[in-house]
Amino acid sequence: MNHPEPIARLIDELQRLPGIGRKGAQRLAFHILRTPREEADRLVEAVRDVKDRITYCSVCNNVTDVDPCALCNGDRDRRIICVVEEPPNVMAIERGGEFKGAYHVLMGALSPLQGVGPDDLKIRSLLARVEAGGVEEVILATNPNVEGEATAIYLARLLKPLGVRVTRIAMGVPVGSDLEYADEVTMHKAMEGRREV
Amino acid sequence: MNHPEPIARLIDELQRLPGIGRKGAQRLAFHILRTPREEADRLVEAVRDVKDRITYCSVCNNVTDVDPCALCNGDRDRRIICVVEEPPNVMAIERGGEFKGAYHVLMGALSPLQGVGPDDLKIRSLLARVEAGGVEEVILATNPNVEGEATAIYLARLLKPLGVRVTRIAMGVPVGSDLEYADEVTMHKAMEGRREV
Repeated sequence: MNHPEPIARLIDELQRLPGIGRKGAQRLAFHILRTPREEADRLVEAVRDVKDRITYCSVCNNVTDVDPCALCNGDRDRRIICVVEEPPNVMAIERGGEFKGAYHVLMGALSPLQGVGPDDLKIRSLLARVEAGGVEEVILATNPNVEGEATAIYLARLLKPLGVRVTRIAMGVPVGSDLEYADEVTMHKAMEGRREV
Repeated sequence: MNHPEPIARLIDELQRLPGIGRKGAQRLAFHILRTPREEADRLVEAVRDVKDRITYCSVCNNVTDVDPCALCNGDRDRRIICVVEEPPNVMAIERGGEFKGAYHVLMGALSPLQGVGPDDLKIRSLLARVEAGGVEEVILATNPNVEGEATAIYLARLLKPLGVRVTRIAMGVPVGSDLEYADEVTMHKAMEGRREV
């Protein structure tokens, strides 16, 4: 005997989400079943809204509901650009509270094994921003793992000839992990201890 | 700096789900953001469908998309009724594969501390099913914790005067846990070793 079809399908869909296994998906499905209609509707609307209203900033590629994004439009120091791999990394650095400059989201990291080359990342637009002038420093805040490190070295080689200072965040962030999970203090220290590449 | 409003709202909604904390909700929200539109739509439809199409069986109170449910309509031994607290518990017992009778879902357990009394549970309809005749045994498969045990004792007192055999599943299921998480073998043993109350 199986779950009724709509429940089985919801369990299947929930299982596709990262970090959710079979039992977790079943638990969530039955929770949604018990939950008041309005609450389920709010969840559904929130998912739809994110797909409908969120785009990528035409300047820095961060996720946003206005273009350019609040950070690119805001009162930030445009002489410093902090380069990260993914949109959630911007939030991780903002939580550190140390950094007051601008951002550039690469939308990934170089990974020959996964077939991600320079043309798959937002590198050209980063170079264009630096070439347009007014930028004094580029902080490479890619993840402290193999791909992030390789990406940082690759970018440093391209950026230095443009006459800009290129730095890498300090390895205060635990090696082998993901920026998204760094705590505020570690992030702050990493930003403070950045060194010349 | 905060997340753009639609992302912040999705994170809020996801955090309401059981077992999902702030970081997990953020991870899920950014996953949904990256995911293809069709996949997000399938998730949304699955949630909507569960709310639209799933009801409770008018006989046993289990979740179903047809009424009476597949189990009440199916080729099951109606002389034995297995009483459980919640709909997912039916699935846990079906996984054991031992039981071929009918079910009755109470929709909870007695809990004076949480203000759940006999009138809040589907006890009257259980008694009506037994009084209608043809039932030889009622297996009490409420959870092996304080509330489930109290509910079993309470039901046994009401059912025995009706001239029906009343049994309780064996404590093969680990005490203090929830039926939903029992493995097949434990569930099978528990069903096999049921004893007279």
